[in-house]
Amino acid sequence: MKIALDAMGGDFGPPNLVGGAVLALRAYPQIDKLFLVGDTPQIEAELTKHHCNDRRIEIVHSTQVVAMTDGAVDSVRRKKDSSVSRAVDLVKKGEAAAIVSAGHTGAAVAATTIKLRTLPGIDRPGIAAIMPSETNIFCLIDAGANSDARAEHLMQYAIMGSVYSRHVLGYKSPSVGLMSIGEEDAKGSDLTKEVFKMLKRSALNFRGNIEGHDLFGDPVEVVVCDGFVGNVILKTCESVATAIMKWLKHELMRSKVRMAGAFLAQQAFKAIKKKTNYEEYGGMPLLGVNGICIIAHGASTALAIKNALRVAAESIEQQVNPHIVEEVSRYNETQAPLESALR
Amino acid sequence: MKIALDAMGGDFGPPNLVGGAVLALRAYPQIDKLFLVGDTPQIEAELTKHHCNDRRIEIVHSTQVVAMTDGAVDSVRRKKDSSVSRAVDLVKKGEAAAIVSAGHTGAAVAATTIKLRTLPGIDRPGIAAIMPSETNIFCLIDAGANSDARAEHLMQYAIMGSVYSRHVLGYKSPSVGLMSIGEEDAKGSDLTKEVFKMLKRSALNFRGNIEGHDLFGDPVEVVVCDGFVGNVILKTCESVATAIMKWLKHELMRSKVRMAGAFLAQQAFKAIKKKTNYEEYGGMPLLGVNGICIIAHGASTALAIKNALRVAAESIEQQVNPHIVEEVSRYNETQAPLESALR
Repeated sequence: MKIALDAMGGDFGPPNLVGGAVLALRAYPQIDKLFLVGDTPQIEAELTKHHCNDRRIEIVHSTQVVAMTDGAVDSVRRKKDSSVSRAVDLVKKGEAAAIVSAGHTGAAVAATTIKLRTLPGIDRPGIAAIMPSETNIFCLIDAGANSDARAEHLMQYAIMGSVYSRHVLGYKSPSVGLMSIGEEDAKGSDLTKEVFKMLKRSALNFRGNIEGHDLFGDPVEVVVCDGFVGNVILKTCESVATAIMKWLKHELMRSKVRMAGAFLAQQAFKAIKKKTNYEEYGGMPLLGVNGICIIAHGASTALAIKNALRVAAESIEQQVNPHIVEEVSRYNETQAPLESALR
Repeated sequence: MKIALDAMGGDFGPPNLVGGAVLALRAYPQIDKLFLVGDTPQIEAELTKHHCNDRRIEIVHSTQVVAMTDGAVDSVRRKKDSSVSRAVDLVKKGEAAAIVSAGHTGAAVAATTIKLRTLPGIDRPGIAAIMPSETNIFCLIDAGANSDARAEHLMQYAIMGSVYSRHVLGYKSPSVGLMSIGEEDAKGSDLTKEVFKMLKRSALNFRGNIEGHDLFGDPVEVVVCDGFVGNVILKTCESVATAIMKWLKHELMRSKVRMAGAFLAQQAFKAIKKKTNYEEYGGMPLLGVNGICIIAHGASTALAIKNALRVAAESIEQQVNPHIVEEVSRYNETQAPLESALR
């Protein structure tokens, strides 16, 4: 399989990105070709540092980088030679099957949506974040692609999240919850109340509203929300986990007895750090575009990039997109007679 | 001072509520009168259990309780003799200066808004949640009163949050951040982009967008968002904190060495538990209504109710409402010439 990596985007640029590419090539023999898209001299310098001359690497030179201050759609129009745009072009031309970017999320979403288009039946793509629950993992969609979503977009996210959970995460009949501000059916915003009705009528395994409270107690396998709320949830979770570990460290340093205790219990702290570390979960698939796009964390380390490339490889193997097209078209067929009956 | 407690609302009903009332009466001599509103026999039974015959208590009988499945506005119209409505009536008649409720949040917001009305210049009230940051505390507004907010509502929340932070939390010139999904000025939803412009033009100490990432690292003293997002943040934080402590406990039990470590470090865990425990922060003031209303957590323990009554007492002492009216009117005066100039 062939994957294109935006080798410039992200808070730390080529060092972490190329470092992750090197790790991934060592770990995943199923990658036949890895395009590193960006400034050739910088990429070559990093490869030299890692003593890497893997023949599966092909550098694709590009002269521009999307800045975090650039507008998402603007960046596609104005920076035609940006690393992310050029990487998407490789997918468009059929030279790569997937793109991975740790850069400006909005720019990656805009470039893939404009150049590759959405899948038939999908209006807006959504980012699926994989998160740890008490005993397992769950998928939160949309984690930030679409911050002004309409009800039909959320319905499509529910379908795409279910398909991804079934085919990639291995859940047989994924349960779906709608993120709201009360678990009772009638609670929520105008938007979620409308989506609730659509989900209730659908063939999905819909379990009703869920609240922030329930998120990590294994309530459902797919959590549906708009991209603004999803992005806030994702970043808030990171923030709370980081803060608690920091406060705990501070408290553990306050006496010699506590420090001794911390030393004895250090393996437990390491396990928690691993469980709450986004790097382990790799990138987040952007579902609904006609191609495969994996969004990696802006602050990705080499390990995170390696795992994002693993997620890209899994998505290629599992053929998620044809399944999405099939399920959405089945949903639309069941809706058509209902809608004409309601008219 | 005189306070009315809804003695029926909340997940655990009279036992925790009356228990909290008893604790508060012991701790706060400044409370002259505490109305316990609800079913007299149940309230009396709880008081007997606590051997409490404090003369400052007055039971106000009511025959109905708002259920979690009731509609918010509906509950005010249909359950005229509910404990929360009757408690609000006491404030309306001037017999109490504040109401505390751990019941259906929407019902408490609706009852106070309909019966007491909003303050001059305020369109919709907002819930101010007090949360711990790395070295201090901050105020998140709106934490769930108004799930379909418009830009002007968020602007009013920023003003009210600033007033509360100055007069109750003691911040001299509270810094204000707008919760968004990117720290750059141009990022956000249609709603937050509009609010950004309004905040930028205002005299508030506005610091720009903040993200979920930054929440606990002391970025700002007032965080502004709509009630849907705020409620999700609040509940997600609780959920993450609970999950991490649970996972940690599980990991610490996995070997005798880790258990010994946990024993030595137990004081550190207790400190973290206290810092992340909502019970310590008490209730959340509903700002913008013409009266004082404190929203307590649905699952409030007696300790949480005691602290909610403390927050009510502080709000009465600090005269927050006249300050809100003054600041909003000052803001509106500066906006009037600007708006006519823009026309």
